[in-house]
Parts: sequence; structure tokens; C-alpha cells
Amino acid sequence: MRRYFAYFQYDGTAYHGWQIQPNALTVQEVFQKALKIFFQKEVELVAAGRTDTGVHASEMVAHFDIDQNLQEKDVIFHLNHLLPKDIAVFDVMEVEPDFHARFDATSRTYNYVLSRKKTAFKPNQSHYFYRQLDIDSMNEAAKLLLGEQDFSCFSKSNTQTYTNLCNITEAHWSIDDEQNWVFKISANRFLRNMVRSIVGTLIEVGEGKRTVESIRALISSKDRRNAGSSVPASGLFLTKIMYPEKGFISRTTP
Amino acid sequence: MRRYFAYFQYDGTAYHGWQIQPNALTVQEVFQKALKIFFQKEVELVAAGRTDTGVHASEMVAHFDIDQNLQEKDVIFHLNHLLPKDIAVFDVMEVEPDFHARFDATSRTYNYVLSRKKTAFKPNQSHYFYRQLDIDSMNEAAKLLLGEQDFSCFSKSNTQTYTNLCNITEAHWSIDDEQNWVFKISANRFLRNMVRSIVGTLIEVGEGKRTVESIRALISSKDRRNAGSSVPASGLFLTKIMYPEKGFISRTTP
Repeated sequence: MRRYFAYFQYDGTAYHGWQIQPNALTVQEVFQKALKIFFQKEVELVAAGRTDTGVHASEMVAHFDIDQNLQEKDVIFHLNHLLPKDIAVFDVMEVEPDFHARFDATSRTYNYVLSRKKTAFKPNQSHYFYRQLDIDSMNEAAKLLLGEQDFSCFSKSNTQTYTNLCNITEAHWSIDDEQNWVFKISANRFLRNMVRSIVGTLIEVGEGKRTVESIRALISSKDRRNAGSSVPASGLFLTKIMYPEKGFISRTTP
Repeated sequence: MRRYFAYFQYDGTAYHGWQIQPNALTVQEVFQKALKIFFQKEVELVAAGRTDTGVHASEMVAHFDIDQNLQEKDVIFHLNHLLPKDIAVFDVMEVEPDFHARFDATSRTYNYVLSRKKTAFKPNQSHYFYRQLDIDSMNEAAKLLLGEQDFSCFSKSNTQTYTNLCNITEAHWSIDDEQNWVFKISANRFLRNMVRSIVGTLIEVGEGKRTVESIRALISSKDRRNAGSSVPASGLFLTKIMYPEKGFISRTTP
């Protein structure tokens, strides 16, 4: 049995998130159906994490096990023909048999895209927000998120996890080529709904509804009711998952 | 009566082109409905040109007449709220009363976007073409299109126009930030279906099915049956329309 990592992207608009559910279409279900057609048997995908309904991934990673030595280029080509337009595979590579897409990931990065003017293209791939915002105070507030802290205040209520500690290593706003405001955040792990409630809270700072300093008290409170409301899923993209080099089996030139 | 130019963009996927038709949804119809709601009366739009079913515009221009002195920012803001997600207005400006969006346009520019690898995003805003292509010979062939020539060979059969002469001032392929191959073409005017059949023909050159030199004979033949097949509408964008400066009424600072 060999283990492979698949690197792929999806527009989440049409899906109820990543993970298979009984009565809703998910990315995992559609992708596993394509694998089943290609390999002529059931193949399970284990992803680096879940994404919620409507959330996109410009880079997602999942592992699968198969008793074949794959021609990676060939697999990518055929899977892309089997998959619908809104899911695209861009790499498949062999890893160590015990290397795990979820447990061995060392960091995840998300981007949240705020479009600042209406554009006719990609309406479901950003969140249109036209009111005035102070990007400097939003970035000052974002700095207070850095480091290992208990982020219960940004966690969906009633979620049971063993700990709400996350180590945020990067959190800042910048302006991209299309004049969108993009919030980039990286951490070892994220809690459910965390990025969207952080962005909603930082927008309130940008609008002057909260002070930069108030973020400290918010985090200390560990109470979700004190945070801002969540921004829509359409603007959220999983963009990068990092792994230690040692898990990858280097491809030998034939 | 004052005349205004509206600058706007649209994703053409959902529309049967620009021009109003009895039994199909068009951009003109949807835009004029928004104007009717805003101005509380019928307002006709005269566009720089037509686009076909499924063709996009990242910049289209149309004029309209109204007996009001408009607050341009206010008009843009409200029209964008009245228009659907796939149509966005980005400028409205007063012009001389006899300045005409179609007749006074001095050049039009189109881009055709070939995506060279599958991407999950914007599937209807490019044409996916994965086979090998020689960009250098495509650019050599494109050079033969320059200048004023009779382009009947790229014109939709049975189209009656007074002349098939067009002056092409720019025609070349380049690779954009997302590794798409983009063909940019500018001319004083275009014939029906012309850009899509030019691109289809240049792709055949890139695949080695036609020589660069054969383009001369093709143009001389003035016969559409000798050209390549048309590429799909999804990759085509109207991107720029040029006008002489003198038609615009400069906004005075209040």
C-alpha cells in the first residue's frame, strides 16, 4: 500500500463544505466519486481539515492509500476530466505511509477577501463591503492576535474540542492588485468559524465601533458573545497547508 | 437634455449578448430596467457595440440622455444596488450632447483568455486548452493581421456590412500572472465573430496545423470556410473602447 497526497482547489459556492454529509453535496463526496471511477474501487480521502459551506480552497491537501505505483501526471490529467469545473487537482505525490494530511500539518493559512467596489466577475469569491474602513487600526488590532492564546471568544458556541489554544503566527491586511482588501492569517490550528468571526471583529475596529485595545479584553473574556458577527463564507479561502519535508518521498528520475 | 456615458462591466455567462431581443435575456434589457427604476422613466442605452451570447466585457461604454444634472457618484452607487451581481457600473460622466458611444469610438480592444491548466475558479471566464502550442509562431502569424485589410475570411457568413475593411493596430499573445495565455487585439472596428475565428485560426498555427505564411493566403481568399473554427465565447472579453478627448465635458470642482 502506498500513500499519496493530492493537492487541489475548489470553488466552494456549490458545496456544503468539505466533509461528507448524508443529505447535502460536499467536495469530499464528489472527489471520492471521481477516485472511484478512476481506480475502480472505493478510495477514502483524509483532508488537512474541513471547510464550511461556501468556503473556498485555493490549496487543499488530502491523502489517500492505493496499492499501485501511480504515474502522477496521468492521474492528475484524468481526475481533472472526471471532476466538475469547480474542483481542480494540481499535484499528486507519494508520501511516507504514516504521513498524515491532517495530523502532520504544521500550519494552515486562510485569506479573507473584501471587495471594496462592485465587480461583475467572481461575485461569490469575495465579500463586497463598501463602507469606510481604517486599515491601519485593523492591522494594529490584528497584531494582538499573534502568539499562542485561548481563542474561545472566536469559537462557535457548543463546539467541544480538547483545547481552544491556537498559535497564530501571521495576521495582517493588505491590498491586492484588484484593490481588494485581503486578510491573511496563519496558525497551527483554527477553531470552528474562527477566521470569519475574527474578520467580523476586525471590521468593527476598522469602522470605529471597537477600539484596537478592546481586542485584549475580548480575548481574555473567552466569550463568543463579545466578538463581532461572522462575515459570509464567500470571501474565505484556505490557501496553504504546511508539512515537514521529511514526509515526502522524493521522486527519482527514471 | 444632457448626455452621459456609462462605463460598466459584465460577466456575459447568463446573457444572450448585449442587444435587446424579444425572447432572451440580454445585458441591455437588464441595465435599462435598472435605469427605469432609478429615473422613473424609460431611458435607452446606446452601446459602443454588441457582444454575442456568453461574451464578457470588463469595460463597456453606452450613452443615455436625461433631463437632469446628475450626481455621478450617487447614480453609480444606486445603479450598482439595482443591478444584478454580474453587471457593475464603475463610472458615469457627462459628454457633449452629440457625442455618440458607437459612432465616436475610435478603437475597440478585446482579450481572449486561454487557460493552460484547470483552475476551480472562473470556469466561465476563460477557455481551457491544454494541448501544446507554439506561442512564437502564433505571434508571428498575429503580426500578419496588422494594418487595414479586408477581413471577410474571419467574418460570419451572410453578414451584410457595407465593408469588411478593418484596421488592426495591435494583435499579440502574452502570458498573464495566472499563467493564462491572453490574446490582445485592437482595431477601429470588428466584424461579427471576427476575434473568435482569428483566435481559432491562430491556435491551429500554434498546433502546427497551419503555417505562419498561410495566413496571407487566408486573408486574400476572403472566404470564411478557409479560416479555423471559432473558439468558445467564454474566453472573450471586450476590454477597452477609445474616444477622442474633446467629447467629454470636464467636471468642474464645486
